[in-house]
Parts: sequence; C-alpha cells; structure tokens
Amino acid sequence: MEIDIPEVKAEVEAAFAGYEAALAANDVEALDGFFRADPRTIRYGGGENLYGIEEIRAFRKGRSPAGIARTLERTVITTFGRDFAVASTMFRRESDGGRIGRQQQTWVRFAEGWRVVAAHVSALPASMP
Amino acid sequence: MEIDIPEVKAEVEAAFAGYEAALAANDVEALDGFFRADPRTIRYGGGENLYGIEEIRAFRKGRSPAGIARTLERTVITTFGRDFAVASTMFRRESDGGRIGRQQQTWVRFAEGWRVVAAHVSALPASMP
Repeated sequence: MEIDIPEVKAEVEAAFAGYEAALAANDVEALDGFFRADPRTIRYGGGENLYGIEEIRAFRKGRSPAGIARTLERTVITTFGRDFAVASTMFRRESDGGRIGRQQQTWVRFAEGWRVVAAHVSALPASMP
Repeated sequence: MEIDIPEVKAEVEAAFAGYEAALAANDVEALDGFFRADPRTIRYGGGENLYGIEEIRAFRKGRSPAGIARTLERTVITTFGRDFAVASTMFRRESDGGRIGRQQQTWVRFAEGWRVVAAHVSALPASMP
C-alpha cells in the first residue's frame, strides 16, 4: 500500500480545491458533482444526518449561502494507493463566532473521476483546542 | 471499483465490531491497535482535534471510562475494492441526555490488517433529526 504517491496526491488536492471553490460560490450543481451519486453516500453535517445522494442534494438546494465563506487550517490530504484518499481540515467562519469547524471527507476514484463517498462536518466551541 | 464484495465487507464488519467492543470495555491497548500507527492518522473527537497516532494515544489514556457505553443506530459499512472501506454510524449514550452522536471512520487494509486512518466523532442536540 503506497501512501502519498505524488501524482495521485496532486489529483486529490485539485479535487479538494475544486470542492472548496464550489462551496464558497454555493454552486449547488458543482457540489453535487463532487459527491458520489449513490444511495450509500453519507454526509453527517453541522446540523443534519444525510443518508444517500438524494438527501444530500435536497440539503444543498435548501441551504442559505449567507455566511458560507470560510478559511481552512491544518488541512491534511493523504492518499492510499491510486484510488483512495482522506482529506481532513479545520475551518473558521466569520459568522461562527470563533467556533472551530472540522471537515473530513473520504474520496474514491471511480471511472468518472474522484468522488466523495463519505463526509462529516462538525464544530467545537471556540474554547476547545 | 467493486463495491461491497461480501468477504471484504465481512472482514470490515468484524474489525468494526472489534473496535466497538474495545470501546465499550475502554480497552485502551486494543483501541490503539485499531488505529494506524502513523503521524498522518487523524481523529476529530467530541471535544478534541487529534493529529497523529501520538495525540490519539495520549487522549485514549487520559479518557474517563464513565458513561462510555452506547447503542448504535443506522450503521452503514461500505467497502471499495479489497482494501478500502468507510463505516458510518449514529449512536446514543444514556449519559448524553438524548444527544445524537455520529461516528465516521475510514478503514484501509495494510499488511498488518485493517486499520482506521481517519475518524470523526461529533454530536447533535436531541432536537435535530
């Protein structure tokens, strides 16, 4: 199991950056495209538990874009072999009063490209490390 | 990319069950063994952000076992090929006043066996779905 093959890591970094840009723009269609269209795709969000791409799509459509901008901290992307990766990052939003967000995504390479198959987003109070 | 090959899924289900048993027993040594011993292993917990196996081990050792028992709900384990898997579950603890926990783990098969390379645990207030 080769970890962090440079060209594989570069691919996942590009996909991760594309997702972040789509999120900042609240580009719902692009965001949809990054998640694997499958009933087994799961996203635990900041205030919701979404099982399957249909629930994820419905959430994206209904989300307010207000205050969605964020800055990332301590982002770590690690690849395993050529088809599997994990991306972990902490983030802060001005609208969040100093809370520390955490986002973790599992990426898999399919014939159609790199897709998120599982994601989990949560936040800790500002007083926690 | 073959998804949910039965014998691979059975392996990950066994590893997942082993982790859950170790957690219920607060068997720190066993819990350690389930996480990949690597500085790139990341665990975002209910109140802490742990980067690297050393931080994860230090957290396990210092954790109080009081009220650690939990029941799982809506557990979904999905495998991708023969070496990668994601396990997502919700959980409740009696000590948590009805809050809904969420745990997501990314598992990779190494020469030494299946190991968690990334994990994220958080909770939502009981009033959220």
